[in-house]
Amino acid sequence: MDNSRNGFHPATLIRDFDQGKTSRLSDGRILREWTLVAQEKEIEVAPGVTFPAWAYNGRVPGPTLRATEGERLRITLVNHSAHAHTIHFHGLHAAAVDGTAGVGLGLVQPGEQTVYEFDAEPYGLHLYHCHVTPLAHHIAKGLYGVFLIDPKEARPEADELVMVMNGFDTNFDRANELYAVNTIPFVYMSEPVKVTVGEPVRIYLVNVLEYDLVNSFHVHGNFFDWYPTGTSKKPVEHTDTVMLCQGQRGILEITFPREGRFMFHAHQSEFAELGWMGFFEAGPRKEPVT
Amino acid sequence: MDNSRNGFHPATLIRDFDQGKTSRLSDGRILREWTLVAQEKEIEVAPGVTFPAWAYNGRVPGPTLRATEGERLRITLVNHSAHAHTIHFHGLHAAAVDGTAGVGLGLVQPGEQTVYEFDAEPYGLHLYHCHVTPLAHHIAKGLYGVFLIDPKEARPEADELVMVMNGFDTNFDRANELYAVNTIPFVYMSEPVKVTVGEPVRIYLVNVLEYDLVNSFHVHGNFFDWYPTGTSKKPVEHTDTVMLCQGQRGILEITFPREGRFMFHAHQSEFAELGWMGFFEAGPRKEPVT
Amino acid sequence: MDNSRNGFHPATLIRDFDQGKTSRLSDGRILREWTLVAQEKEIEVAPGVTFPAWAYNGRVPGPTLRATEGERLRITLVNHSAHAHTIHFHGLHAAAVDGTAGVGLGLVQPGEQTVYEFDAEPYGLHLYHCHVTPLAHHIAKGLYGVFLIDPKEARPEADELVMVMNGFDTNFDRANELYAVNTIPFVYMSEPVKVTVGEPVRIYLVNVLEYDLVNSFHVHGNFFDWYPTGTSKKPVEHTDTVMLCQGQRGILEITFPREGRFMFHAHQSEFAELGWMGFFEAGPRKEPVT
Ligand SMILES: [Cu+2]
Ligand SMILES: [Cu+2]
Ligand SMILES: [Cu+2]
Repeated sequence: MDNSRNGFHPATLIRDFDQGKTSRLSDGRILREWTLVAQEKEIEVAPGVTFPAWAYNGRVPGPTLRATEGERLRITLVNHSAHAHTIHFHGLHAAAVDGTAGVGLGLVQPGEQTVYEFDAEPYGLHLYHCHVTPLAHHIAKGLYGVFLIDPKEARPEADELVMVMNGFDTNFDRANELYAVNTIPFVYMSEPVKVTVGEPVRIYLVNVLEYDLVNSFHVHGNFFDWYPTGTSKKPVEHTDTVMLCQGQRGILEITFPREGRFMFHAHQSEFAELGWMGFFEAGPRKEPVT
Repeated sequence: MDNSRNGFHPATLIRDFDQGKTSRLSDGRILREWTLVAQEKEIEVAPGVTFPAWAYNGRVPGPTLRATEGERLRITLVNHSAHAHTIHFHGLHAAAVDGTAGVGLGLVQPGEQTVYEFDAEPYGLHLYHCHVTPLAHHIAKGLYGVFLIDPKEARPEADELVMVMNGFDTNFDRANELYAVNTIPFVYMSEPVKVTVGEPVRIYLVNVLEYDLVNSFHVHGNFFDWYPTGTSKKPVEHTDTVMLCQGQRGILEITFPREGRFMFHAHQSEFAELGWMGFFEAGPRKEPVT
Repeated sequence: MDNSRNGFHPATLIRDFDQGKTSRLSDGRILREWTLVAQEKEIEVAPGVTFPAWAYNGRVPGPTLRATEGERLRITLVNHSAHAHTIHFHGLHAAAVDGTAGVGLGLVQPGEQTVYEFDAEPYGLHLYHCHVTPLAHHIAKGLYGVFLIDPKEARPEADELVMVMNGFDTNFDRANELYAVNTIPFVYMSEPVKVTVGEPVRIYLVNVLEYDLVNSFHVHGNFFDWYPTGTSKKPVEHTDTVMLCQGQRGILEITFPREGRFMFHAHQSEFAELGWMGFFEAGPRKEPVT
C-alpha cells in the first residue's frame, strides 16, 4: 500500500512543521502568516477503505503551525467546502477572534474566508480544530491540527516529532472503526519512525480522538519525561504511559539508549489492535565530527 | 425559561458558599454546624423535562459547605425522604462517623436523623455524597455537594465560583441524556458567568458525573493554573483542559486578560452538545478607588 | 467461601513479594532469577462462577517480581499452555529481549521456553503482561503481574501492599461482569486488609483492567501521597482518589491516624458494586519496645 496515496505521507508529516511566512511589524515584532483551506477530501485510511474527510490544506491532521512566543499570528481560513466551518485555536486570544460558531468571528460560509489574528501565547503545545455544531462530527471528519508555540528561549536541540492521536468512524455509527497516530492505521509498523541512539527525541503528542473518552501513549523498553500542555520546562513524570482526553496534549522527551525496534501504541488494547500502534527504529549513534 | 424554577438558580448557586452556624468550643476552637435535609424533589432540568431528583436541602448540587482547616464540624442529616440515605464525606474522619451503608453511622432511615462530627482536615477541595447501594443510583439522583476546607492561611482574594459537573439519566437506562455544570444544561449560555478583567477568579471544580467514566473542563482563549484536590498551594499545570473521573476535583485559578464572552465546556463533544457548555462574560476592569 | 480455593489467597498475595533467586556475577553485580510458567487454570472468581484463566505460576495476578535498581534480571518463561504466549516487561530493556509477538524474542510456543534478560531500570513501579494478539484477550485472561524495582537507596520502611486492579469477562462479550483488586471481587470486604495506626503503609497500585478505559482508587476517611509510576521520591498530589488507564500505575503512601474499618473502592460506582471494593482495618498502634 502506498502510504502517500492521500497526497500526504505520515512518514514525512511526522517531522513537518509549517512555520508560515514571516515579515516584520512596525513595532519590530514578527508577523507570521498562514492560509488554511478547508475542503472535502476523500482519503484512503486503510487498503480499500475510503473516508469522506474534511481537511485543512488537504491533510488530516492539518498543518502543524509553529510559532514563537510573542509573535503576531495571522491565519486566514478559506472555506472551499460545501459546509460552514471555523478554526478554534487553543491558546490565549481575544473573544472577538475566537473561531466558534455563534461566537467571535463565527461561521465561515462556503466560498468565504476570514482572518484570525492574535499573539502567540502562552508557549506550549496547543491545537486547533473546527468548532461548528454538531461538534463531534466536524472534529471527527478531520478538521484539526497542531498549534505549537516555542518558548522565546528555545528548548534544547532534539529530533522533533508530531503525533496526533486520531480515529475514524467509517460507518457513521458515532464510534471509531479505526485508530491511528497521524491518520493511517499501522503506518509506522511498516515504515518505522527512525530515531538515533543517544540523540534526544521530542514528541509533540496531541489527542483529538472523538467518540472515545480517553486515549493513551505507551512505548516499549524506554521511558520518557512528560510535560503536560508543554507550558513548563520541568517535567512532571518519568514514565512509559500517559493518558489524555480529547484536547489534552503534552511533550514527551525521550532518548533511546539502545538500537532496535521499539513498539509504541495505545494501552487500550482495542485501539492498538485497530491501528494505533507503530515502531521506533533506533539506529546507530552518529559519529561525532572530528 | 425561568432558571430559578427549581427554587435554586445556577447563577446564584455558583457563588453560594454555606458557612453554617458557628460557635466556640470550650477548647477555643470553632464549632461549625449545618443541617442537611434529604428529600425527594422533582426538578425541571430542561424545558418540560422533569427529573425525580433526590436532593439535600432542595438543591442539586447540595449546599457548598465551607469551613476552615482545624475547625470542628457537625453536620446533621435529616431524612425526609422515603428512602434510607447517608452522607459520606471525602476528607479525614473516624471510621465511626463515616456515612456509608453498613459502615460507621450507616443508614439513616426515613424520618430519622443522624449527626456526622469530625475535624476539618485536610485543607483542600472535597465533596460529599450519599453512599447507599445501589450507589450509582443514589448519586445520580442528585445527593451530592461540595465540601470546601480553606487553609488556615487563606488563599489570596479572588472571585470564587463553584462548578459541579453532573448529568441526568432522564429515561433510567443507566446513561445520561443531559450534561451540565450545576444541573441545568446550557444555563450559562443564556446567563453567562460574569467575571472581571484583571481580577483573579478561583473555580472549585468537582466531578460527580455518574455512568460516564470521565469528564473534563476546557475554556476558550484563556489558561488557568491547576491544583488537583486543592491540597497544595503550588499548581501542577498551566493549561486550558483538565480531565477528572468521578470523585476527582481541583481548583482552577484564572485571570481574564481581556473583555468578552469566552466559552467553557467539556472537551467530550457529546457532553458539550447535551448541555455541558457555558460562557464567561469578562467585563471591564474595575476602577481602583483613589 | 474459601478465598484460598484457587491455590492463592488475596489476603496473602497482597503482601507476597517474589524476590527470586540471587547469585553474584563476575562483575560483582547481583543476578536475580525467576521462572514463570504460563498455563491454563480454571479459577473461581465468585461463588460458583469459574473463569478459564491463563496464569503465570498458577496465580492471577502473577507473582510480584521485586528487584533493586542496577541488578541483572533473568526471567525464564516456560509455556505449559496450549497457546503461544510471551512476557512483555514495562521498564528499560533492549529490543532484542522484548516479549512481544513478532518482535524481539517473539512468541514462546506451547512446550517451549525462553529467557528474558536485562538490567533493572529505572527504579519505579512497573508491570509485565503477555503481548500476543489478540492483545485484549491475552491480558484479560490473566497473564499479568507487578514488576517492582526498588531504588538503590531504599524507600523508608513501611507496611507494603500490592493491589492489582483487574476484572473478568465471564461471558466473553468483551465487557467485564466482575471487578476486583487482586482478582476476587469483594474479598477484602469479608477479610479486611489489616494495617496499623501510625505505621506508614505503601501501596503498589497497578491497573491492568481490560475493556474499560479507566479505573480508579478511592479510600474513605484518609488521604495519601501519590507517586505516579513510582519513578520519583517526591509525591505529586495529596488526595483520596486517583485515576489510571490500563498500564498506568503508581505508589500510594498512607498512614492511618485512627483505628477502624475504612472502605476503599473504585469511584466508578459500577465497578465498586460489581466487586471492586474492600476494607482497611486499622488496628491499634504497636507499643514501642522499651
Ligand atoms: Cu467544521
Ligand atoms: Cu442515598
Ligand atoms: Cu498470551
